Amino acid sequence: MEAVDHLAPERNRAQFDVEEMKIVWAGSRDAFEVSDRMSRLVASDPVFRKDNRPMLGRKELFKNTLRKAAHAWKRIIELRLNEEEAYRLRFYVDEPAFTDLHWGMFIPAIKGQGTEEQQQKWLPLAYKMQIIGCYAQTELGHGSNVQGLETTATFDPQTDEFVINSPTLTSSKWWPGGLGKVSTHAVVYARLITDGQDQGVHGFIVQLRSLDDHLPLPGITIGDIGMKFGNGAYNSMDNGVLRFDDVRIPRNQMLMRVLQVTREGKCVQSNVPRQLIYGTMVYVRQTIVSDASCALSRAVCIATRYSAVRRQFGSHNGGPETQVIDYKTQQARLFPLLASAYAFRFIGEWLKWLYTDVTGRLQANDFSTLPEAHACTAGLKSLTTSATADGIEECRKLCGGHGYLCSSGLPELFAVYIPSCTYEGDNVVLLLQVARHLMKTISQLGSGKKPVGTTAYMGRVEQLMQCRSDVQIAEDWLKPNVVLEAFEARAARMSVACAQALSKFTNPEEGFQQLSADLVEAAVAHCQLIVVSKFLEKLQQDIPGKGVKQQLQILCSIYALFLVHKHLGDFLSTGCITAKQGSLANEQLRSLYSQVRPNAIALVDAFDYTDHYLGSALGRYDGNVYPTLYEEAWKDPLNESVVPDGYQEYVRPMLKQQLRNARL
Amino acid sequence: MEAVDHLAPERNRAQFDVEEMKIVWAGSRDAFEVSDRMSRLVASDPVFRKDNRPMLGRKELFKNTLRKAAHAWKRIIELRLNEEEAYRLRFYVDEPAFTDLHWGMFIPAIKGQGTEEQQQKWLPLAYKMQIIGCYAQTELGHGSNVQGLETTATFDPQTDEFVINSPTLTSSKWWPGGLGKVSTHAVVYARLITDGQDQGVHGFIVQLRSLDDHLPLPGITIGDIGMKFGNGAYNSMDNGVLRFDDVRIPRNQMLMRVLQVTREGKCVQSNVPRQLIYGTMVYVRQTIVSDASCALSRAVCIATRYSAVRRQFGSHNGGPETQVIDYKTQQARLFPLLASAYAFRFIGEWLKWLYTDVTGRLQANDFSTLPEAHACTAGLKSLTTSATADGIEECRKLCGGHGYLCSSGLPELFAVYIPSCTYEGDNVVLLLQVARHLMKTISQLGSGKKPVGTTAYMGRVEQLMQCRSDVQIAEDWLKPNVVLEAFEARAARMSVACAQALSKFTNPEEGFQQLSADLVEAAVAHCQLIVVSKFLEKLQQDIPGKGVKQQLQILCSIYALFLVHKHLGDFLSTGCITAKQGSLANEQLRSLYSQVRPNAIALVDAFDYTDHYLGSALGRYDGNVYPTLYEEAWKDPLNESVVPDGYQEYVRPMLKQQLRNARL
Repeated sequence: MEAVDHLAPERNRAQFDVEEMKIVWAGSRDAFEVSDRMSRLVASDPVFRKDNRPMLGRKELFKNTLRKAAHAWKRIIELRLNEEEAYRLRFYVDEPAFTDLHWGMFIPAIKGQGTEEQQQKWLPLAYKMQIIGCYAQTELGHGSNVQGLETTATFDPQTDEFVINSPTLTSSKWWPGGLGKVSTHAVVYARLITDGQDQGVHGFIVQLRSLDDHLPLPGITIGDIGMKFGNGAYNSMDNGVLRFDDVRIPRNQMLMRVLQVTREGKCVQSNVPRQLIYGTMVYVRQTIVSDASCALSRAVCIATRYSAVRRQFGSHNGGPETQVIDYKTQQARLFPLLASAYAFRFIGEWLKWLYTDVTGRLQANDFSTLPEAHACTAGLKSLTTSATADGIEECRKLCGGHGYLCSSGLPELFAVYIPSCTYEGDNVVLLLQVARHLMKTISQLGSGKKPVGTTAYMGRVEQLMQCRSDVQIAEDWLKPNVVLEAFEARAARMSVACAQALSKFTNPEEGFQQLSADLVEAAVAHCQLIVVSKFLEKLQQDIPGKGVKQQLQILCSIYALFLVHKHLGDFLSTGCITAKQGSLANEQLRSLYSQVRPNAIALVDAFDYTDHYLGSALGRYDGNVYPTLYEEAWKDPLNESVVPDGYQEYVRPMLKQQLRNARL
Repeated sequence: MEAVDHLAPERNRAQFDVEEMKIVWAGSRDAFEVSDRMSRLVASDPVFRKDNRPMLGRKELFKNTLRKAAHAWKRIIELRLNEEEAYRLRFYVDEPAFTDLHWGMFIPAIKGQGTEEQQQKWLPLAYKMQIIGCYAQTELGHGSNVQGLETTATFDPQTDEFVINSPTLTSSKWWPGGLGKVSTHAVVYARLITDGQDQGVHGFIVQLRSLDDHLPLPGITIGDIGMKFGNGAYNSMDNGVLRFDDVRIPRNQMLMRVLQVTREGKCVQSNVPRQLIYGTMVYVRQTIVSDASCALSRAVCIATRYSAVRRQFGSHNGGPETQVIDYKTQQARLFPLLASAYAFRFIGEWLKWLYTDVTGRLQANDFSTLPEAHACTAGLKSLTTSATADGIEECRKLCGGHGYLCSSGLPELFAVYIPSCTYEGDNVVLLLQVARHLMKTISQLGSGKKPVGTTAYMGRVEQLMQCRSDVQIAEDWLKPNVVLEAFEARAARMSVACAQALSKFTNPEEGFQQLSADLVEAAVAHCQLIVVSKFLEKLQQDIPGKGVKQQLQILCSIYALFLVHKHLGDFLSTGCITAKQGSLANEQLRSLYSQVRPNAIALVDAFDYTDHYLGSALGRYDGNVYPTLYEEAWKDPLNESVVPDGYQEYVRPMLKQQLRNARL
């Protein structure tokens, strides 16, 4: 194809410095540089080709993933990449693989729950990939309710071993990524039984496969749990099933940082605070929020570029038709998602800070902010992943029929993303945790306990219950204080309403259960407030670059006012704004869409995604959509022959009226 | 597996006659009998096996589809099935195939747009499948804007032929199902050019492939457009690309029922009204609405049964955990979808009546109700397909992690369903058509033109602008008049608000464009009113069977009050209800969920779906979920060997630190 840039006119219209925006998006110049370098390294390496994924059968696909993982590791060694670079490289390979669990769950579990001694023994092996590990927690019968896991680890004082067993079918480990075909080891969660007593669920390092021939060790049954949503997507991952038939491991393979089992089978609590485990959860969920902004921005980038290329209707006197990005219906669906991508980026950044803050405090034995940080991270994980999953599908719809083709990249992006709504905490279960924290915060208001961090506004609940928005004209909605007050008032009032309704129940648990759907809505309102307020805080910072801050202000307003419109029922029924003010918010929103329109393409260019990473005929940087779609089509296996396989046996007899005698 | 029925206790709790409900769902005893018989015929035939679909490569999958299509046709002939039976049989085969387009689009196009003579020539061939046809309308560059199609059909008076040509890359026909590999013929839409004049877009019957060897005829390039969303899903369909290089067809292959081209190349309008084409659109979209209720009910059936089997949390003293269907958060998401499935079923039934009514009127040259019927069908197509697509994905989420497995059946159901939001009219474009009709209706109110059919309520607009709901207690929301008035008032006020805003623009087209997002919301409000009002009308009928009507009343109330809650912003900002009344609606909704709970399993049993049709380990009739999931897993190709293909080349060198020298 000749070099074209169908989007050049769009890029020329931008009113801000896109190179500076790239730095803002990446978080720092350094982060940008690493990310940019790694993405190009991956894009230029033919081993990392991914356009053929949807056409591969499961076995081929999986073998190809093994190849990519080995190649990536080889490159990481050869180029002596540091941890951040290696992470970025794997990120841009953009294919779920066993290595995700090895680096992201197995190693952190040992670091977080293993003793010094255990860490010294196992981590060097894991760091060099002399062993490959996974994280075997969920079972066929238990996901969210970790305390209900059925696998047992019974201490045998005779031999100083634990006996790991799967007592029921539903106790089969089910879902762990990397388990099915690759991992040699696992951190297995099981009920600790000592002296006939159930001591609750703990982690154990268990070798699964021989390091000689990769065969499962005696007593261990492992397999893959089968195909999942999408063509490639998570089918490159060997999510596995695992059963134990009285498998013995040495006592020192129980992760004993918090609880030790002695030679005699006694349980001894260490002086390491149990709360540490929440610190790890904050860390993992924080990375999930960052990933949400990546996935959403990717879908938005594809949909925005294609919306500028695609034209439909509105031709006058034989001139070109209207770019679909110029339709208000398209803008009203697309631009809030663009704004959300930026909002989630900044909330992810802030969560990184929060994790550092919490870790520092934990080390100083200060647990005071932990419940709030934990609730906040849980809620933001839920909010951002749900919005991203829905947002990707919305972007696909915004691409019309062509978005349904695998070559658009969007089906795969959706299929590969949606598990994040379920893993590391089901999104509804997490919101109920947030709601519980909110109800507790409110119940403690009387006692003089001051709410901290993201719940601090609850300290002003009386004022927030009274306030009336003073928006009078549409532009008033651009004022940060106006927006913040409306979101605070809505969140506070929804929580208070729930608390009041709860107080009417004699059994609070029964009340919580009965009102849980309303509690979830109050939790959402609280989490949206956090995202809005942190976006506004970000705008308080000094942000260099021509027009950069102005664009972010527009996006922040779009994010907030879009939520006002979407959840208007909340805002109106809690009385924090009037119907007239809601209508003014909508009016302002329309005007903001017009302001963002000329900058839309540059705003998605700022994500700095290569065409390889995007993996989309519709989202190409140069906008050369139609020739690419056309070329991609011919690569389908069905096009290997003009007359399809099956014509002679099935189609011809039909056409020739010879079906009666045909053997089918 | 031994015979179990884990759901028997649930079935025993039902408070209504499920056999009678099956008749209501099917529409009549006859319809039930045919449907039931055909579904069992398909389920018992091993050729129609479908559990292996996600694991097949594209070519295998497609060949298997050809086999099923031939086998289905053979059975139809052998058993001398009538049209309705044959349709049902194909329906239960449950796999998109070229036959869908042959029967659903090619034949109807000839019937609708062909002259008597043309019908006599082509229909017998098509009915016997001596030719296989498709419907080649959309192009790479044009979908919604049919008038923008670029393919040309130029009349050559010298030879009395049309010359069909694809002048640009974007004029390539793109998407037509059945085109890529199977069809021998197509109805091709092209710009008619006579005597250098562009006469607009018309249909032409074009032979594509030789009936001898199936090779494309000279000047014709055909292929498949490549993989689409999902594992099996629409990949069993050969959606195709087609280019013409000056292909000649005889003049009598233009479909000339409405417009004729004479031997001299003159265009002559026939006396057949052009509006007939809208009649066909009403027909096709009506079937799409029926299909929506099938797809949604299927997802709901799976999610409901699994929610009754799945238990998580809430165990007391070692007793069983709580069934997830007992959680209010689950009910608040699942039961509105159950109610929607029923609502869409009845609106589909009503649309069938509407089509009959419109057809009768057209034959009597009465076009008065056509615009309203057309708008109404367009809007309901949009409303029901969007809600169904979202609803299927919500059902998948309601199944937690296991819903992500192909063996749950839900990924495929989603992937195969979502195109219906795009085909036969993009859902947003359709809502804009509805909005246009509403604005026109309002503008004609002053002129004394009485709004008809589903817009009749607009005739009472002055009263509706004033009314205040008189709900005082939660139970008031159970009164049909209360619900109807609230929905009418909301819809009327949103339309009027749009009309008033529009009137401020000097250029109405510019206004329509600027306000299009609001207009879409007004159209949605109007369409939801139609669904609610037709459900209420259905309940006016005599419905036999113990408790059947009561259950439908509960479902109708859930459907309506769920919408009140979801769109509370609309209801409050238009002032038809107060915040307090909105809160009472929510309260009533919670109580309705408790009422539907004991009947939930029986209400999905009433759909009468076989386990074959559901195709879901989670939705099995007997609730035997876990053993099924476990068995399904082992069928994955990855489990053919214990040590995966690729271990020697890629995993072992990594573990043995020999990657540096490995060739990858």
